Amino acid sequence: MANAHPTPVDVADVAIDDDFWSPWVERNREEIIAYQYEQLEESGTLENFRRVIDGKSGGFQGMWFQDSDAYKWIEAASYVLASDDDPELEGWVDEVIELIAGAQEESGYIDTYFQLKESEQRWTNLNMLHELYCMGHLIEAAVAHYEATGKETLLDVARGVADHVDEVFPEEIDGVPGHEEIELALVRLARVTDEERYLDLAAYFVELRGRDDRLQWEFEHADEIAGDGWREGSLIEAARGAFYEDDEYVGSYAQAQAPLVDQEAVEGHSVRAMYFYAAATDLLHERDEPEWGAALDRLWENMTQKRMYVTGGIGSTEHGERFTEDYHLPNDTSYAETCAAIGSVFWTQRMFERSPDAKYADLIERTLYNGFLVGVSLDGREYFYDNRLASDGDHHRTGWFQCACCPPNAARLFASLGRYLYASTDETVYVNQYIGSEATVEVGAETVDIEQDSTLPWEGSATLDVAADGEVTLALRVPEWTDEMTVDGDAVTADEDGYAHVTVSGEETLDLAFEQSVEQVVAHPQVAADAGKVAVTRGPLVYCAEAVDNDRPLDQYALPAGADIAASHDPDLLDGVTSLEADAEVPSSDGWEGSLYRPREETGTESASLTFVPYYAWDNREDGAMRVWIRAA
Amino acid sequence: MANAHPTPVDVADVAIDDDFWSPWVERNREEIIAYQYEQLEESGTLENFRRVIDGKSGGFQGMWFQDSDAYKWIEAASYVLASDDDPELEGWVDEVIELIAGAQEESGYIDTYFQLKESEQRWTNLNMLHELYCMGHLIEAAVAHYEATGKETLLDVARGVADHVDEVFPEEIDGVPGHEEIELALVRLARVTDEERYLDLAAYFVELRGRDDRLQWEFEHADEIAGDGWREGSLIEAARGAFYEDDEYVGSYAQAQAPLVDQEAVEGHSVRAMYFYAAATDLLHERDEPEWGAALDRLWENMTQKRMYVTGGIGSTEHGERFTEDYHLPNDTSYAETCAAIGSVFWTQRMFERSPDAKYADLIERTLYNGFLVGVSLDGREYFYDNRLASDGDHHRTGWFQCACCPPNAARLFASLGRYLYASTDETVYVNQYIGSEATVEVGAETVDIEQDSTLPWEGSATLDVAADGEVTLALRVPEWTDEMTVDGDAVTADEDGYAHVTVSGEETLDLAFEQSVEQVVAHPQVAADAGKVAVTRGPLVYCAEAVDNDRPLDQYALPAGADIAASHDPDLLDGVTSLEADAEVPSSDGWEGSLYRPREETGTESASLTFVPYYAWDNREDGAMRVWIRAA
Repeated sequence: MANAHPTPVDVADVAIDDDFWSPWVERNREEIIAYQYEQLEESGTLENFRRVIDGKSGGFQGMWFQDSDAYKWIEAASYVLASDDDPELEGWVDEVIELIAGAQEESGYIDTYFQLKESEQRWTNLNMLHELYCMGHLIEAAVAHYEATGKETLLDVARGVADHVDEVFPEEIDGVPGHEEIELALVRLARVTDEERYLDLAAYFVELRGRDDRLQWEFEHADEIAGDGWREGSLIEAARGAFYEDDEYVGSYAQAQAPLVDQEAVEGHSVRAMYFYAAATDLLHERDEPEWGAALDRLWENMTQKRMYVTGGIGSTEHGERFTEDYHLPNDTSYAETCAAIGSVFWTQRMFERSPDAKYADLIERTLYNGFLVGVSLDGREYFYDNRLASDGDHHRTGWFQCACCPPNAARLFASLGRYLYASTDETVYVNQYIGSEATVEVGAETVDIEQDSTLPWEGSATLDVAADGEVTLALRVPEWTDEMTVDGDAVTADEDGYAHVTVSGEETLDLAFEQSVEQVVAHPQVAADAGKVAVTRGPLVYCAEAVDNDRPLDQYALPAGADIAASHDPDLLDGVTSLEADAEVPSSDGWEGSLYRPREETGTESASLTFVPYYAWDNREDGAMRVWIRAA
Repeated sequence: MANAHPTPVDVADVAIDDDFWSPWVERNREEIIAYQYEQLEESGTLENFRRVIDGKSGGFQGMWFQDSDAYKWIEAASYVLASDDDPELEGWVDEVIELIAGAQEESGYIDTYFQLKESEQRWTNLNMLHELYCMGHLIEAAVAHYEATGKETLLDVARGVADHVDEVFPEEIDGVPGHEEIELALVRLARVTDEERYLDLAAYFVELRGRDDRLQWEFEHADEIAGDGWREGSLIEAARGAFYEDDEYVGSYAQAQAPLVDQEAVEGHSVRAMYFYAAATDLLHERDEPEWGAALDRLWENMTQKRMYVTGGIGSTEHGERFTEDYHLPNDTSYAETCAAIGSVFWTQRMFERSPDAKYADLIERTLYNGFLVGVSLDGREYFYDNRLASDGDHHRTGWFQCACCPPNAARLFASLGRYLYASTDETVYVNQYIGSEATVEVGAETVDIEQDSTLPWEGSATLDVAADGEVTLALRVPEWTDEMTVDGDAVTADEDGYAHVTVSGEETLDLAFEQSVEQVVAHPQVAADAGKVAVTRGPLVYCAEAVDNDRPLDQYALPAGADIAASHDPDLLDGVTSLEADAEVPSSDGWEGSLYRPREETGTESASLTFVPYYAWDNREDGAMRVWIRAA
């Protein structure tokens, strides 16, 4: 589907080969996806499909959106199969697809929670019971599987699902789902099937949100409709809390507080918001909706300029896992869900594809290295569902299946990381991420081969070996964090779109260097949680201080402006990181014997070394306090 | 009961006449005590006694310690009657005493909760059901009433109660109450009755705490014993939470974690702790228990040097209304219960009487002006049960009877304020508080009349007109907060006990002056909540910043060392206060358009005026944020 927008290079055409990222990507490929396959069996997820096939009722296992685990797993596995020949994995995928196909009803409907548990109550609880959410993930899996393998086994199921949804909505039900996902999935399906109806259906869901009263009606008639979602104590409470404010129903939890075009700020459950805006942005490739575009620009600005942690994390409270208010970014109770960071990457990539600007790739980079990666332990086996920016030592990653949605979501992002590196229009190759890789990029009718080496994030250089048939323009992202970027030793400056545009022809090697110094960063004055504090960054990495590296309680340290901060790489620390040693200040201990409060002028400070490690790597050693924001002296 | 310890002057012999305190004391006398009398009827407190007299069962109204409201009220009213001729009030008191006397059983037992509600279950729930606590307050009321009026109507009841308790403990039950109070009451009763048995009984309770297993046994057999205290959902939960840690019973909530002599830190419910230590300290007047003395010194040091807010408030968490750990003094969740501040005054006064030192009177002053007074609204009608040192605007005083224990406790402290001003031994008059007053002080066989004028806390001077029969030593407290104190223009220095000792003979007038500058105070480096922050004090007052007086969110302000801070008195502000205007810094707003995070070196600060008002006066205007601790620039 060629168009004026840049198109990302298929995951099949990009192989990651990077000192930093390859270990993550390879472990994901070699261990995690296989482990997750076992867990699909252990958790009863596959058994749900088998029970439907066998015509049984009851006995559903897991959460009401359990099916989506299987779908996300197929999607992740398909990204692996796109570039790897792995017959064993392919066999597992085929087996799971057979179960899914078998469980699909004649009508196209598939949702084992309803098929086994509340068969008469289908489509009665769009707010909470996630049929369309699961179907969306099925469709995304099908598209990925088809693109990776050329097989239409799951794509046929997906078509059936989409056709069924198209029959039900709006003829039988005029409403939108509580949790978005179907919308962006339908766009992807439309692109591989060239089926306009699916785009129309996606646009219908996007357009209707905030205009209908179905979600509100369901909430008010909770007792009459389907689902444990309403009736079980804890979930009812959680749901009521999320949808109500001062006893008034508010749709903002599900981005239904107003139609998209009237929305002024990113609101509600942050994963839902990301999927919704991603779908709307995606639709702009095919549709001319200038008001949508203006709204999405406004919302992305609101998110990045008023509602985002310095790590790229989003969502300021666990109550509703949601956005709260402009500049409300508490650190010790930050939510910053790993899945929301992933969702932000999805949306932001689509913003780039709609209107290329380096600011989008900057945010993706910041999110990948910080707000996303922190969600996963160094061994890939434990996960933060929510990510704090300050901890007193009581917040830890937990094993895979205590955290339902993040691990498979992380797996599909690791497996599709290649998608975020390069994109192209008919004239230009966008180099968005400086991650070592080999890629084949279609530029109009030509093919450009790129081999990239990168020393990020520890050092500030990258080499691009480019082999083009003729002449091609490379749009090289000038990272937001560098004060100077050179190409072959010459300083380059960003054009208005944030990229340095360089023309190459034939085979050329470009040596890129990025000045990468340690920065003290301050937050907007309205961010009360960060008042009088600084965060320390180096290149794309946000750093943090952990108790294990520092003698004093962390709140005692203060960083003077211009403090000397030395970086040194230690290959044995935290699987190899560059740590920082800062000349900080701490209160002098002198004269405190027997005193709890003293006149300020009688007290003093002394110098002390404060050690920082990359934020993503925290909580991988002994338990202890952590701070991203350190007092400014 | 003359002895080597200083004896406080009876409330009957001190009349408060002070610009600052008189309005509080007079309103307490003229409005609050009458209002509280009405509420004793409204709340059913008196009706409980009538039902017992009428031989009814059931129909108990209020909390299980409801009787104590009547007793505390009699105590407060008695302090008023001690110096005022008020026949109406005296009539009310007599009427309530008649009800109490009528409800007392032949045995001496009285507790309308058990008499009406669980008659068979007396003395089975010492942990929670507060029989001994209520009896203690009855005894305190009786002593105050006898001392004020000479009548023995209530004193006879109190003797009967004490004799009954003396029969039951330890012969029938060997155990201590969950909530201390009986101990200090028995000491007071012993002093007016010269009855050694009551001292022995008080000492028995003090000595046994932490050695018996009665409290633990009761907790483990909660289902078998009396009381809603265990069985009603919320109270059971609250109690379990308070008495258990990691599923292990710990006595620390009730100071039973160890015998007194082995206690290293003030622990548990802070009101209970204060009453316990007050009783133990009091007993040292009559008993030589060097190990108790060492323990009490250690505990008072622990409290004041590691577990006390700058306001004199104590108790760092609402969970158990208790002490937590050394240096754990959070501001936005501080508990600092008003009753605990009152309890601290009770204990600290006894520490002074045991071993006079100005540090005790210093703490009483600090607590009276700050941690205690903040509990009461300027109109005397609304109360903080717990006192925050930081608020985002959602913490407010509530009306009298939503807050059960603090209002009557505050009433008895206001009514007995005179007790804390002067004390004497055979040679010396201790002048502990610079509060305007007329007092008659017995010094050995002599009588000294003192008339004091004071300009505290707004100005730093006091005048003492002293009329002694012969020669007398005045021990003038040199306040901890002054850098220079003069008497008749000559600088005086404190002796080792913190007092300047001055000899006067006949009639003399002493003009005292205290240098009273604005101080920035910092907390011990281990207090994480106050790291990088300062509190502002002037004389005995702790100040705070309120949103209503300041343009920017309070977290944006930072105070440089040596900042110019101007004091000015405004008779129309908050019933007349001296407010402070500081030259503070705030972040510059320049350059933030479109940014959420920026390099520190590109940002700056600008000057801004920061207004402070006395902490006790906060939350008397429109709702808004408040901070005691302000960032240090």
